[in-house]
Amino acid sequence: MKKITLAIIGLMGLSVAAFAEDYTKYVDPMIGADNGGYAFPGATLPYGMVKLGPDCNNLTENAGWQVNTPVVGFTHTHLNGSGGGCKYGNISFMASTGEMNPADYASAYSDPVAKVGLFSINLDRYGVKARLSATRHAGFHEYIFPETDKANVFVDLGKFLASIEIQEFVGSEVTVLSDTEIQGYQRIRGGWNYSEAYTVYFYAKFDTPCESFGTWKDGKLYPGKASQSDENTKCGAYFTFNTKGHKTIRAKVGISYMGCNKARENAAEITSWDIEDTHMAAVNEWNDILSQVALEGGDETVKKIFYSSFYRVFMQPSDYIGENPKWISDEPYYGDYHAIWDTFRATHPMINLFRPTRGGEMVQSLVNIAEHDKFLPDARTSHWSGRTQGGSNADMLIADAFVKGVKGIDYEAALKCMLKSATVYPGDDERQYGRGGLPDYNSIGYVSAEYERGCSRTFEFSANDYAIATVAKGLGHNDIYEKYAEKSHSWENLWNPDIESMGFKGFAWPRHRDGSWLEDPNFTVFSSGSFEHQFYETFSWEMSFYVPHDMKTLVEKMGGVDEFTKRLDHYFNTPFPTKTDELLFYTKLVGMCQISNEPCFLAPSLYAYVGQPYKTAKIVRQILRDMYWAGGDGVPGNDDSGSMGAWYAFHTLGFYPNAGQDVYLISSPVFPKATLTFEDGKQLVITAKKASDKNIYIKSAKLNGQPLDRCWLRHSELVAGGTLEFEMTSKPTDWAKDGILPPSLSDEYNK
Amino acid sequence: MKKITLAIIGLMGLSVAAFAEDYTKYVDPMIGADNGGYAFPGATLPYGMVKLGPDCNNLTENAGWQVNTPVVGFTHTHLNGSGGGCKYGNISFMASTGEMNPADYASAYSDPVAKVGLFSINLDRYGVKARLSATRHAGFHEYIFPETDKANVFVDLGKFLASIEIQEFVGSEVTVLSDTEIQGYQRIRGGWNYSEAYTVYFYAKFDTPCESFGTWKDGKLYPGKASQSDENTKCGAYFTFNTKGHKTIRAKVGISYMGCNKARENAAEITSWDIEDTHMAAVNEWNDILSQVALEGGDETVKKIFYSSFYRVFMQPSDYIGENPKWISDEPYYGDYHAIWDTFRATHPMINLFRPTRGGEMVQSLVNIAEHDKFLPDARTSHWSGRTQGGSNADMLIADAFVKGVKGIDYEAALKCMLKSATVYPGDDERQYGRGGLPDYNSIGYVSAEYERGCSRTFEFSANDYAIATVAKGLGHNDIYEKYAEKSHSWENLWNPDIESMGFKGFAWPRHRDGSWLEDPNFTVFSSGSFEHQFYETFSWEMSFYVPHDMKTLVEKMGGVDEFTKRLDHYFNTPFPTKTDELLFYTKLVGMCQISNEPCFLAPSLYAYVGQPYKTAKIVRQILRDMYWAGGDGVPGNDDSGSMGAWYAFHTLGFYPNAGQDVYLISSPVFPKATLTFEDGKQLVITAKKASDKNIYIKSAKLNGQPLDRCWLRHSELVAGGTLEFEMTSKPTDWAKDGILPPSLSDEYNK
Repeated sequence: MKKITLAIIGLMGLSVAAFAEDYTKYVDPMIGADNGGYAFPGATLPYGMVKLGPDCNNLTENAGWQVNTPVVGFTHTHLNGSGGGCKYGNISFMASTGEMNPADYASAYSDPVAKVGLFSINLDRYGVKARLSATRHAGFHEYIFPETDKANVFVDLGKFLASIEIQEFVGSEVTVLSDTEIQGYQRIRGGWNYSEAYTVYFYAKFDTPCESFGTWKDGKLYPGKASQSDENTKCGAYFTFNTKGHKTIRAKVGISYMGCNKARENAAEITSWDIEDTHMAAVNEWNDILSQVALEGGDETVKKIFYSSFYRVFMQPSDYIGENPKWISDEPYYGDYHAIWDTFRATHPMINLFRPTRGGEMVQSLVNIAEHDKFLPDARTSHWSGRTQGGSNADMLIADAFVKGVKGIDYEAALKCMLKSATVYPGDDERQYGRGGLPDYNSIGYVSAEYERGCSRTFEFSANDYAIATVAKGLGHNDIYEKYAEKSHSWENLWNPDIESMGFKGFAWPRHRDGSWLEDPNFTVFSSGSFEHQFYETFSWEMSFYVPHDMKTLVEKMGGVDEFTKRLDHYFNTPFPTKTDELLFYTKLVGMCQISNEPCFLAPSLYAYVGQPYKTAKIVRQILRDMYWAGGDGVPGNDDSGSMGAWYAFHTLGFYPNAGQDVYLISSPVFPKATLTFEDGKQLVITAKKASDKNIYIKSAKLNGQPLDRCWLRHSELVAGGTLEFEMTSKPTDWAKDGILPPSLSDEYNK
Repeated sequence: MKKITLAIIGLMGLSVAAFAEDYTKYVDPMIGADNGGYAFPGATLPYGMVKLGPDCNNLTENAGWQVNTPVVGFTHTHLNGSGGGCKYGNISFMASTGEMNPADYASAYSDPVAKVGLFSINLDRYGVKARLSATRHAGFHEYIFPETDKANVFVDLGKFLASIEIQEFVGSEVTVLSDTEIQGYQRIRGGWNYSEAYTVYFYAKFDTPCESFGTWKDGKLYPGKASQSDENTKCGAYFTFNTKGHKTIRAKVGISYMGCNKARENAAEITSWDIEDTHMAAVNEWNDILSQVALEGGDETVKKIFYSSFYRVFMQPSDYIGENPKWISDEPYYGDYHAIWDTFRATHPMINLFRPTRGGEMVQSLVNIAEHDKFLPDARTSHWSGRTQGGSNADMLIADAFVKGVKGIDYEAALKCMLKSATVYPGDDERQYGRGGLPDYNSIGYVSAEYERGCSRTFEFSANDYAIATVAKGLGHNDIYEKYAEKSHSWENLWNPDIESMGFKGFAWPRHRDGSWLEDPNFTVFSSGSFEHQFYETFSWEMSFYVPHDMKTLVEKMGGVDEFTKRLDHYFNTPFPTKTDELLFYTKLVGMCQISNEPCFLAPSLYAYVGQPYKTAKIVRQILRDMYWAGGDGVPGNDDSGSMGAWYAFHTLGFYPNAGQDVYLISSPVFPKATLTFEDGKQLVITAKKASDKNIYIKSAKLNGQPLDRCWLRHSELVAGGTLEFEMTSKPTDWAKDGILPPSLSDEYNK
């Protein structure tokens, strides 16, 4: 009855040995896992629902892992790179030796090794080595014990990740079914998206019968008692083994959002008790994606950073097909959009480029979600939509898929959902979904300072409206196109020509409902904040560059090409002039550009709109070199579901998308040769003759042998396959200076 | 860790034999169960979470039961008297003989007998007698089979109630744990409140080991297979018994919203395999409430109608303490508010009068819900708030409890929740909770015709604002009091003095946002509709009487005492002048008064506001006599969670509350003597000398021996206990004509 949506697994259907190269060897899942990057270092498949990895005391790090901090358990659900409040960390398994003590079991660790599909670590307190792997819906646990008659493996249903914007415990149950089986669930609410309660069920099958077992509830141990019931209480269960002469205990743990029986079915995805079989299956599935980019020449360390970045792009959204506890539908069902405000810019465009079938499923799942759950979400985890950071940026995903010809999407239905966001006020839920401040936006043309995030919303809504216009035009709805093309000029209503800073005039500025501009001596073009602020995680200097759909008008507003260029130079080259604690915590700056956060993602590419791509090359190469490296702290900000990874990977290949538009802006290819294999098997060979750390400027370019004198490409030009040849040099060039500029709204529509 | 909130069980702590009388013998749960009354005829305790009763083909009746229609199962969750789309009907057990056939097993029935705490019926197709009883969280099933080697008892998790505004299936699982145990769950979404998916878990323990068992999934039988997993699929399980020489099969079925283990714990509430023990426990618990009114003299049939009505008042809201799968709280947790628009008028005031401890818990649970789930709900079932019919009428419950001194409520917190409804627009969710049309109401003073239900909302919001003012005043927040006292005049903004009908001038009327009145030849003072209409389930003639907090101003607006009285007479005595299909389906009329629905509930008592209580006596007695009787179709409309029951019970005792105010309006006591025992043991003896079907008018009254010359009472006057003596006569009297009128807003506050 349900459409079984098969991923395009195995471009060539071959085993790992058959890949020209094992690209997973270049992937270090630990890159970005420290210092606020929150990259998930554990075991998972592409889009895997189960992400099995270590959680450390005090369970406050977003992906669970925290260096130099005792391990408290291995949980099956994580987000990759999320910022803000923690989410998930469900169904915590752990090993110990000696008497079972549910109040104190965390262990110092040593020798953590993260590979694609395998995570291993020593639990030094117990002399236990733990190894973890994963299938799509199940985790493989292997614990190698010392010889003892008290080797414990246990599940603690009272553990989960919880920091600011806290997840709260709701309830749990556990049942020991036999001497090799435990099942139960954990129910949690809250987290960053203020989710209602969600329930994660599990079923664990061990390879070895336990010698004894027990359960606990509210911290009290019940040896021999097989089950605990839910009185909004925390419970757990343990198996004790005798490992004298039999040191390895293995468990397959199925996870489900439906029920325990479904979790049991999911556990059966693991068909062998050899962890290497599960590990190798993961390696194969990942290689299938990683091999779509074959890099040649260049630096091995840079290769490692590239593939680790590229890897993170495909971790999320998670494939929840068959795991929807909310409604029945034949449509695909994905979750862990966290958040589209982050991922629409680079993560999803990269998925659309390399895995359009998945990309289409993801967009169609959003349409299906909107049809069952009120609005297109900006973020969605634990089957719950919320929160919205700025605009209704799911619109950008839809437009991006549309202009790139992504199939599997009911675009008419999608347009309806976009229009709902654009017309129906979400009211009290204006942080949950839809467009906050909409009554202002649709009556006076901007979100006034009387609402929070007035400037961010207005600028993002304008881009979102262009996304609506784009899809409407393509579908032949000219009335809708005209209306939303006009609305996408709305950012101009918050353009205050009188604000001056550092010699530049005209900035995005908060405006009151009565039309007057905000006057507040404490509010400057550098002021920044979070949900309550007018500029969400950005500031006027930066936001003023965010008009991705009408750069032509923006350049004019800023005083023409020279003034615009000067201003963009200034932005990248002038130190942030006031104390940086006005910005957010993990901010890393290049000049005033917060490269650690998404609002600036497009900015380095904007020189394309004034025909000066060599400046893009310079700043992009600087960021790639200075802000990313092959270490735990090697990602400049929260990876944000592969956002940092996608930014890095695109620019390393030499181009970057203007999301929602059929436009890739060329930057500076890093590797001498990169062969891109698309989903349909077509190949694009990108060569960059003489490319090196010094030869970063494009001297000339050819597409399929024909000279290319513009600094941007269309999607069809990439995916058709063929050759894209660059010749690189160490000095700035005039290449593409006089080429056709990338398109702007005002080329096609003027109010 | 949780406050265990004990109900005041057992005023005297005595067994059934110790009650002066077994009042349950007067209760016929079948009264109102037919013909759209939707009274629940099955077994339940007061506020029982489990309501176990029969569901009939085609599962489209709101309480499950449908006369002359085959029985398809016995389910554990029901609402009493709900209208609109069906809700619940979860965990369906059934018996059959012969080969198990999950596609066809409904049976014609005979001899249905509904008693308090016991429902029995013959399943004629199989020669099986089924008997059902219930504890708070568990159902007792007894099936007396013919002698056969193929006696089946089974659970069908694909069955549930579903009509308009349909419940939809989401998923199910089942597991046969042993030859006497089955557990599983059913997940459903939708229904009248457009609920997200909810999960009902069960655990069944049989008294007899089965001979064989099996399960099914998607209609396919799997004999001997012990479990089925959830792929958004319908499944079930069966036990087959040999009943040769052992004809009775019993099962205890625990129900839970937490998990299967909790359901198992709940099943253990039933401690004996003798169904009479469970039945008698229910009888005792019900007698504890029913005995709070001891009627003497009068008609035995009327007594039966009275106690059956009184019984239905205490079925809902349901006590879900310990069964909250959404969040943890020390506060009480109730559900099945369905809907407060119906129940604030009479059901809750009756609970506050007789069971204020429960009443306080209910209100506090609403506050707790609002704190965790955005707004005070108007309706809430399956742990999901929605929909809102008119105003934010939870406000009325809070004010009602407040003025009556109900304890256990954090009134400051409650006021905050009321103020949220009054100030925060629910946006897209304006049918889910909060106040729809609020932007209009708070800017132009009424909800314009540009919104749906503009008139109903404006009139109800005005009353709600008075509720806010009442609580604010009592708490000493004079600024809030003043603001909301003023806002409670808002209904006047929709008073169109130019509308004329049948010689009366001035009516509630839809108004555009620009201030102009609706002009539409098809829209009349008799026009009525549902959610999309300006008058929700009422019409202008009727709504124009709904100003419960400021009858003095209304009387003035209508042209003074004489004109008002004439108009009210006209309303009760003039046949509805146009085709009644403009009204809703189950409408029964007394003149133009839709006595089958709540908007008119207060109308018969309004003569009190012009000192003419004899007219109230006349019309109330007429309605009691003509519109209620001791039959399945003996309730004039949907019972609506005891609303019809409470209306009947109040008026039979001789008074009726103006909800949210410290006012009971006297009508006409039916019985010569009624002894009311309040929760604290105090007793009020109401005597009505010479009361009879003819002597319906009050000639004189004394309260505690002192002459009472006003036709209304304060709560404190009732619950202090003592005597309330009436002398009745057959002719209209001038009693209370010149007494102090009940209070009106304009007595205390004029804008």
